[in-house]
Amino acid sequence: MDSRVQLITLGVPDLDAARRFYVEGLGWPVILDVPGEVTFVQVGHGLALSLFGAQALEDDIGTGTSPARDPAPVTLAQIVATEEDVARALDDAVRAGGTVLKPPQPAEWGGFHGYFADPAGFRWEVAVNPGWAVAPDGAVSIGDSPG
Amino acid sequence: MDSRVQLITLGVPDLDAARRFYVEGLGWPVILDVPGEVTFVQVGHGLALSLFGAQALEDDIGTGTSPARDPAPVTLAQIVATEEDVARALDDAVRAGGTVLKPPQPAEWGGFHGYFADPAGFRWEVAVNPGWAVAPDGAVSIGDSPG
Repeated sequence: MDSRVQLITLGVPDLDAARRFYVEGLGWPVILDVPGEVTFVQVGHGLALSLFGAQALEDDIGTGTSPARDPAPVTLAQIVATEEDVARALDDAVRAGGTVLKPPQPAEWGGFHGYFADPAGFRWEVAVNPGWAVAPDGAVSIGDSPG
Repeated sequence: MDSRVQLITLGVPDLDAARRFYVEGLGWPVILDVPGEVTFVQVGHGLALSLFGAQALEDDIGTGTSPARDPAPVTLAQIVATEEDVARALDDAVRAGGTVLKPPQPAEWGGFHGYFADPAGFRWEVAVNPGWAVAPDGAVSIGDSPG
């Protein structure tokens, strides 16, 4: 199995609220919108974020259970250039209906970061990480790792 | 705030088990390994998957709570070419220590797919989706969506 992620699906309790946050609030580009069912948003090179009903996701997997209500032990992260960019991203998120969980501050690992939650409770980190580099072929290197 | 995901962090209860699954089991390429703390794996163009302790993730966000134990209402998905590729990926996952949640089968949306869970319970979809296309600039299109 190749090491590849092409789609991140967030199972949300309220599709309209999720769409308002990501599409209307943050202005992210829609790939495909199936009203009342699913919205796909472009979030990287060949990478999509899907907003899908939490129960519909459980039904698609076939678990026969209700979705978890606690914040998922998952974060999605975005690397930005400056500390001001971190603050700006968190401001954008708040204006779009998100909630700041950790205001912009130095990170334990040496960078600078903050966290916010989207309306469904999914957590995003926005970080300055001077050691994060991407080669022309897309290979990521972190710090002084071979890359 | 740009529409960009560069890092997906999975908060796992057992770092060694997660590493055994993704790195030793599936053979995915390590970007950076900090033993006992975090492992970063390459999963796309400029995209990394991070295996991090679930409690450490809550501590980093500063929630002051324990991580959720239910399966997160999130899936990561990989698009493959053929139905045989779906079966092969699920077999790879099982050999690496994962669990099949939904065996390979036609998907309601017209493609073909299956789901597995990694040792921490995170769910992966492996799917054939003939409508999924990626332009040279990385733009995703789905079905007859403008792309």
